[in-house]
Amino acid sequence: MLQCNYGMAAISGGTQPGLSKGMTLTKSNLQIDSARLWNAIHETAKFGGTPKGGVRRLTLGAEDKQVRDWFRDACEAAGCTVSVDALGTMFAVRPGHDMSKPPIGIGSHLDTQPTGGKFDGVLGTLAALEVIRSMNDAGIETEAPVCICNWTNEEGSRFAPAMMASAAYAGEYTTDDILSRKDNDGITVAEALDTISYRGIEPVGTRKFAAFVELHIEQGPLLEAEEKTIGVVDLGQGIVWYNGTISGFASHAGTTPMPLRRDALATFAEVVLAVEKIAKDHGPNAVGTIGEVAIDNPSRNVIAGDLKFSAEFRSPESATMDKLDSALQSAVKDISTRRKVNIAIDQIWRKEPTVFNTEIVKAVEGATKQLGYSYRRITSGAGHDACNLAGVMPAAMIFVPCKDGISHNELEDATQADCTAGANVLLHTTLALAGVVSAPKANT
Amino acid sequence: MLQCNYGMAAISGGTQPGLSKGMTLTKSNLQIDSARLWNAIHETAKFGGTPKGGVRRLTLGAEDKQVRDWFRDACEAAGCTVSVDALGTMFAVRPGHDMSKPPIGIGSHLDTQPTGGKFDGVLGTLAALEVIRSMNDAGIETEAPVCICNWTNEEGSRFAPAMMASAAYAGEYTTDDILSRKDNDGITVAEALDTISYRGIEPVGTRKFAAFVELHIEQGPLLEAEEKTIGVVDLGQGIVWYNGTISGFASHAGTTPMPLRRDALATFAEVVLAVEKIAKDHGPNAVGTIGEVAIDNPSRNVIAGDLKFSAEFRSPESATMDKLDSALQSAVKDISTRRKVNIAIDQIWRKEPTVFNTEIVKAVEGATKQLGYSYRRITSGAGHDACNLAGVMPAAMIFVPCKDGISHNELEDATQADCTAGANVLLHTTLALAGVVSAPKANT
Repeated sequence: MLQCNYGMAAISGGTQPGLSKGMTLTKSNLQIDSARLWNAIHETAKFGGTPKGGVRRLTLGAEDKQVRDWFRDACEAAGCTVSVDALGTMFAVRPGHDMSKPPIGIGSHLDTQPTGGKFDGVLGTLAALEVIRSMNDAGIETEAPVCICNWTNEEGSRFAPAMMASAAYAGEYTTDDILSRKDNDGITVAEALDTISYRGIEPVGTRKFAAFVELHIEQGPLLEAEEKTIGVVDLGQGIVWYNGTISGFASHAGTTPMPLRRDALATFAEVVLAVEKIAKDHGPNAVGTIGEVAIDNPSRNVIAGDLKFSAEFRSPESATMDKLDSALQSAVKDISTRRKVNIAIDQIWRKEPTVFNTEIVKAVEGATKQLGYSYRRITSGAGHDACNLAGVMPAAMIFVPCKDGISHNELEDATQADCTAGANVLLHTTLALAGVVSAPKANT
Repeated sequence: MLQCNYGMAAISGGTQPGLSKGMTLTKSNLQIDSARLWNAIHETAKFGGTPKGGVRRLTLGAEDKQVRDWFRDACEAAGCTVSVDALGTMFAVRPGHDMSKPPIGIGSHLDTQPTGGKFDGVLGTLAALEVIRSMNDAGIETEAPVCICNWTNEEGSRFAPAMMASAAYAGEYTTDDILSRKDNDGITVAEALDTISYRGIEPVGTRKFAAFVELHIEQGPLLEAEEKTIGVVDLGQGIVWYNGTISGFASHAGTTPMPLRRDALATFAEVVLAVEKIAKDHGPNAVGTIGEVAIDNPSRNVIAGDLKFSAEFRSPESATMDKLDSALQSAVKDISTRRKVNIAIDQIWRKEPTVFNTEIVKAVEGATKQLGYSYRRITSGAGHDACNLAGVMPAAMIFVPCKDGISHNELEDATQADCTAGANVLLHTTLALAGVVSAPKANT
């Protein structure tokens, strides 16, 4: 059966191109080359590959240069024109029939965590390459151009902030600000870019896109738990971060009776459980976490006097974020008063929830249905470049399951079948958004 | 009014010497020289004195040598014969009428915490010196000799274990074992002793005492809170130490729904509150503390996967210690099962409660009453050399209040009046235990 779902090219222009001549030749069962995608993932995993099967490819380091060079060569071999912006983000454009139209952006990032996996970011970037390669194989010409993006420093492990290039693209930081950020060795982003010769001349944020679609592993357990192949990402969680300090009174663990204690750690324990309870009370779409605590001068036989901690809440709803914050402030006040221990909790960052573009989400969902994959709408719990870009262009994301929800870990894993499914959805979403002009070699 | 409470000399020999000729001349209001004691405390506080008014005098370091030399000179000037054992503990003997009797030991330690105060250990040692000086001034001859002790490394800050010399004296460690212990720079106790020329030839544990009495600041808040001048210490708390590990699952704080989490830190929070509750449930004479926790690879946006912690309980009753331990094991099992997070908690040390010798405690109480000080029976929450010695000789302790219960801190403070009161109790306890032969200069 032939299906004709491709007609949303140039969504940002608001025009709906008519079906062109080759359109009916592109079948819904057009598939990317699974083995080629899988090989590309494993071939690039050698750049920074670790003994445990993970990848250590810090942004703008020697291994990042290796994978960037590989990626540039592969894109050029696939007929793309590669350019680089002032923050090192790579854009590989496959021409469209109408070069006056802004391209459909697809991709992700190629940098990894210090002990990262083979899929985080890599899947989305190399699947985008595979989409181009598959379109080439099928002889498909799109109405709008398609542009693969490799965003610099998504991970934030070497330079802060994470997702810095897409944030600068979206206007949240100036280019000069980002260029001046330093790693732990005092090396600036500018110096690191120059060292690997990836400081381009294209001004950041000037390249316009009709839309951006990012394929990514879920980095969470939901798809696997529910046995869904595809997550159609319609929301990105808002995030609120706190820094906290607790000031009790350090005293001798043996000589201070229980009723006279002002124990910072016991106070902290109540805060931890309060954060957990508040998140549960506002569930299922809220999470709350305390992942760090440091006691000042800890000792086995000294009651903790002072400590520092961090905390965070996430929710896809801004109103819920307000409620989480309010509940935390209330709980902290209660705990502090009851224990006569001072608790200071400062909100240091708040990122509003990302609402992905309805039309692009529908395009992803349409492609998924067309391909017959099981799916669910899903909220991105993690931050992604697409979340930053969603503020300045229509954007959406595609998730595929990852084993046990593990990411940012050398144990990160995903199946070839799921990666292939994600790439197929990316292919058909791209075709739908870019519009197909002709597909002479399409399998009929 | 004359009182005659001095007649318990040579308690270890079981003999009760008859009142000798000068006995009735020693009045209950014989006082130590408060200003001299206070000056000695402040004069020695310069050896390792800190800008904040505390003392940093790590055992067997240069400052410890300085205070030891000062102490040796002062004791010899007071007519004592000073000797040193193989672990550097100093013994300064004031002769008694009957040198065949074992001496009454009094004293404490002169080493301090890295940021310690002026009183912890120092008060007990210099008050013992002041007792000798006051007896000299009063022309008092005692039946049994009196021996001031300065025990090596009570604090345990440089070398482990704390109270090592008294523990070795009591047979808990061999001398060679202790001599081989190393500080963080790899220097052994033997080397440190040789460096400051305080490695004596007297075998550890061979010097016998009729009794040992240690004056110390309380290091807790009870005396101050109850406005008592003297704590008559009849018990020392038993201590049980644990090392614990919690193994949950590290995962992304944004992508892991609350119900699917196996959060090591939230689990730990429950353990902290369980330890607190268990101690309170077994109060008022039980305490429980968690003072240390270290998360493996902590991160603001990662659910804690693994962490380590320590825990302790103290009680003056062995049966209560059993109950505390049992309740903890039960709570840990419950928390672990409910959260599906592994908790391993290993008991690494158990010290049974110290029961101070009834006769010596009564001697302290008698001297306190005789002097008219307000007092209460009290349990030592901290460990002291007297607790180790109580296992091998009749022993007891005298506590005086310290400001806000603060110790092991440069802010540690005590009043001159309270220190004087404690020294007076030590004086009269010593006279009672050693027996007074003659006191020609006593104030009648």
